Amino acid sequence: MPETNNASETPVVQSTPSRRAFLRGAAVAVAVPAVAGALAACKDEGVKTATAGTPPQMTHADSDQSGGTMAPHPKSPAEIRAAADEMDRHHEAGIKSFPAATQGKGNQLMQPRVENGVKVYDLAAEKLMWEVAPGQSVEAWAYNGQVPGPQIRVKEGERVKINFTNRLEESTAIHFHGVALPNGMDGVPFITQPPVKPGESFTYEFTVPNSGSHMYHSHHNSSKQVPMGLLGAFIVEPRGGETHHADVDYVMILNDGSHGYTLNGKGFPATEPIVANRGQKVRIRFMNEGMMIHPMHLHGMPMLVTHKDGYPQPQPWHCDTLNIAPGERWDVMVDCQNPGTWAFHCHILPHAEGPMGMFGMVTALVVK
Amino acid sequence: MPETNNASETPVVQSTPSRRAFLRGAAVAVAVPAVAGALAACKDEGVKTATAGTPPQMTHADSDQSGGTMAPHPKSPAEIRAAADEMDRHHEAGIKSFPAATQGKGNQLMQPRVENGVKVYDLAAEKLMWEVAPGQSVEAWAYNGQVPGPQIRVKEGERVKINFTNRLEESTAIHFHGVALPNGMDGVPFITQPPVKPGESFTYEFTVPNSGSHMYHSHHNSSKQVPMGLLGAFIVEPRGGETHHADVDYVMILNDGSHGYTLNGKGFPATEPIVANRGQKVRIRFMNEGMMIHPMHLHGMPMLVTHKDGYPQPQPWHCDTLNIAPGERWDVMVDCQNPGTWAFHCHILPHAEGPMGMFGMVTALVVK
Amino acid sequence: MPETNNASETPVVQSTPSRRAFLRGAAVAVAVPAVAGALAACKDEGVKTATAGTPPQMTHADSDQSGGTMAPHPKSPAEIRAAADEMDRHHEAGIKSFPAATQGKGNQLMQPRVENGVKVYDLAAEKLMWEVAPGQSVEAWAYNGQVPGPQIRVKEGERVKINFTNRLEESTAIHFHGVALPNGMDGVPFITQPPVKPGESFTYEFTVPNSGSHMYHSHHNSSKQVPMGLLGAFIVEPRGGETHHADVDYVMILNDGSHGYTLNGKGFPATEPIVANRGQKVRIRFMNEGMMIHPMHLHGMPMLVTHKDGYPQPQPWHCDTLNIAPGERWDVMVDCQNPGTWAFHCHILPHAEGPMGMFGMVTALVVK
Repeated sequence: MPETNNASETPVVQSTPSRRAFLRGAAVAVAVPAVAGALAACKDEGVKTATAGTPPQMTHADSDQSGGTMAPHPKSPAEIRAAADEMDRHHEAGIKSFPAATQGKGNQLMQPRVENGVKVYDLAAEKLMWEVAPGQSVEAWAYNGQVPGPQIRVKEGERVKINFTNRLEESTAIHFHGVALPNGMDGVPFITQPPVKPGESFTYEFTVPNSGSHMYHSHHNSSKQVPMGLLGAFIVEPRGGETHHADVDYVMILNDGSHGYTLNGKGFPATEPIVANRGQKVRIRFMNEGMMIHPMHLHGMPMLVTHKDGYPQPQPWHCDTLNIAPGERWDVMVDCQNPGTWAFHCHILPHAEGPMGMFGMVTALVVK
Repeated sequence: MPETNNASETPVVQSTPSRRAFLRGAAVAVAVPAVAGALAACKDEGVKTATAGTPPQMTHADSDQSGGTMAPHPKSPAEIRAAADEMDRHHEAGIKSFPAATQGKGNQLMQPRVENGVKVYDLAAEKLMWEVAPGQSVEAWAYNGQVPGPQIRVKEGERVKINFTNRLEESTAIHFHGVALPNGMDGVPFITQPPVKPGESFTYEFTVPNSGSHMYHSHHNSSKQVPMGLLGAFIVEPRGGETHHADVDYVMILNDGSHGYTLNGKGFPATEPIVANRGQKVRIRFMNEGMMIHPMHLHGMPMLVTHKDGYPQPQPWHCDTLNIAPGERWDVMVDCQNPGTWAFHCHILPHAEGPMGMFGMVTALVVK
Repeated sequence: MPETNNASETPVVQSTPSRRAFLRGAAVAVAVPAVAGALAACKDEGVKTATAGTPPQMTHADSDQSGGTMAPHPKSPAEIRAAADEMDRHHEAGIKSFPAATQGKGNQLMQPRVENGVKVYDLAAEKLMWEVAPGQSVEAWAYNGQVPGPQIRVKEGERVKINFTNRLEESTAIHFHGVALPNGMDGVPFITQPPVKPGESFTYEFTVPNSGSHMYHSHHNSSKQVPMGLLGAFIVEPRGGETHHADVDYVMILNDGSHGYTLNGKGFPATEPIVANRGQKVRIRFMNEGMMIHPMHLHGMPMLVTHKDGYPQPQPWHCDTLNIAPGERWDVMVDCQNPGTWAFHCHILPHAEGPMGMFGMVTALVVK
């Protein structure tokens, strides 16, 4: 992750270790090579100077002072520092690896074929392994091998056909969440259609009636199938064009099931940064496919909330933290006037950071 | 639940089982009579044809292939289908039984008697058994034998008297949530009144000061008493009439305590459908008496949000998923232009569906 | 907590114990001295009369009826009353002790020193014990010995310098949540600055760019450090003055970590009442530093929502229950026209009341 320097601001790092910390530093560096490595990687040069040059046996002498008592041994400054460095090493490693490579990418824009003026999409649901974060693979049930499924982007009033095949071991069906379809296309087994059995197919065909940031997902055994990955974005561009011009149009799908806390199917550091040039406008289409709220917090710049579930808000309004509940979609615009790499994360902190560093629902907005 | 057909749309069911699935279908039908029954009930006729005519012993031959190894036995297409059918049978049974009969109905409009121009309501709290869903009875603490308690509907400026008797085994009191009453009528034990002890009574009397979708509920040991059922709707119609005309005015009280996930005291399929004719306007007054948020999602048509806690929003706005937090009330209008039976449920999916089918916070809007 | 009487309203307490309850009352009073004490303190005089004058042995005779059977012994009215009184005694004691004294007070307005036109604040993080509620002390990590940290209040466009020293045993950093700072001042270790190691310091210096109710808190190991107390209010008054005049400007920081459910670092009854004269306007700046939503419910009067995250809402709107998600800030105005002591609490009821009475996220608005 690039670091941005603002010449007009003056961050000052002051190194103020106690004399004891000074005396013990080197001992720890000898005894805990991993920590020494972390120190070598650390950018905070002043600290390295402060902790150099003391013999290791100082530590042993100190241990002896606790003698045979059962009293808890207060940590020495050097021990504290070593523990802090060890923790920080993990934090740094996660951030430095961002964006980390993983197998598979979800939410890729799908190109339809056009047959007699109808946009045709072929979707198949199947089981696969999905790399959520580096080295963390989970069983997923996915549309066309992606979690989230491929992004479908159509225009208001277009005719759309979706040929769906179920290659899972249980029945399913697709609900186009937010799209005001004729009842027979609504995708709810036993209410609007029979379930699509394993090995079978079902064709959804309709004229797209309303614009907005919508979703498609399973509506059968949904509390299992959606968290497993049977979900995707269904974006409908308005006939007259978007009310707010965007240089970058980004879909961010939140999920929180057995795959962990994910943005577009990946957990930090495998999430994808949003990149824009200074002065560009970024639209973010938040979609919550999970079971919990996620108040998404963008650092550095406010978000202008323009749409809820695809419908315009009467008057857009600003915020920096937007609470997104399951099933909701919110569109926001960011005016990228503040250069730098900005943390962008769920503000339920245990969805974003642990003692070993950031994970889950964290990404960045990079304004170049 | 009625199914709606839209002649202008063309759902196509394609049966594409593999040859193995074709060969094994009948075996399963023989070995698992329950599944055969389910198949007989299934509307998907094409599938039945595809799975007929194969001798049972094919399955045994297949089992033999796993021999003495410990390797997991991959399911055959027929086994997969049988499992899917078995799961679907439960899903279908739940939906087909909707709306299921249960004992007791909450939220019934209560007729007051009028004494000297004052509307008088008698309320008593008592313990009883409450059938939340077919065959599932739970202990409830209820006003006038109903969960939610009887719906009280008055007009702004009217004089109201509520004679309350506590027949529970612990003290209680009634708070009129959202009604800006004089302090002595606010119903908070030890702050505005003494608790109403078991066997005793308390009379609330006031002139109704503000309109809106309000609630009444216990404000004593409330984290126990409210989930147990001591809650109800207190609707105050504005002096000048509602800002939005409604053909159907529906109160939907959400709860999530020891009674499970309920709408007006019942879990699906014992919930009540909302029924309207095409072109009618339906007002829904959402009220959350639970401990969790519930983002309610209506299929097929947007909701126009008009009021929050009884106060008009400056400008109504549309959505299809409305997040309702504990203690909140939201009024929405639905313009019933899209015919059919539409699923209407909490979009925290585990509040609405499990492997055995829909349950809990699910109902339907039926547009005839 | 003062009780308010409204002469125009007539609460009527009716004592209607059964004859059995009448006969047994005294027995319980003898056998359970604590209950007798509670009764003596009880304001409900009518009840005391009703429960006097019966010999204790009635209870024993009654117990004998259950003989050798295993059948549950139904409670007598007197036993029920005694249990209710015992429960109510705890409820009353909590409320009567409000506001209860505890050691330490957080969120105190901090006076800066001014150096060359720059407002300078010295902050240090350290570990201490914090009395959350009477007799309940927890380990806290605090800025300047306070939970929340001292309130920083500056004006839009002012130059601010914050000298921060880390006296904790792990690294940390300060993020100014909601303040649109230059990237280098954003306080996210390894993204915008190195972590501030134990014993070290870091100086944040910036010109305050945007007004509003903001926060400062740790952005390192934050799911541990923020719940432990490393948080505070950072209020930026707009250059042109607030859009809504307030006689009382109150900051209410919600938290829900290992310190329990707290308002400004304290749980009821150690929370602080908000006090105003009738006719005054109170601004409340809600800030959620926790991990859960908290729908704050004010009794007696509506709240006018004016700002979200420091940005004005296009048109203010009224409510009585405002859902505040983690990281969010909401400003509301209360027009104090309704005299009395009004409960003010999170409406997730288990965050506010248990069988032993109110606790956690409860305070009161007192309109004199």
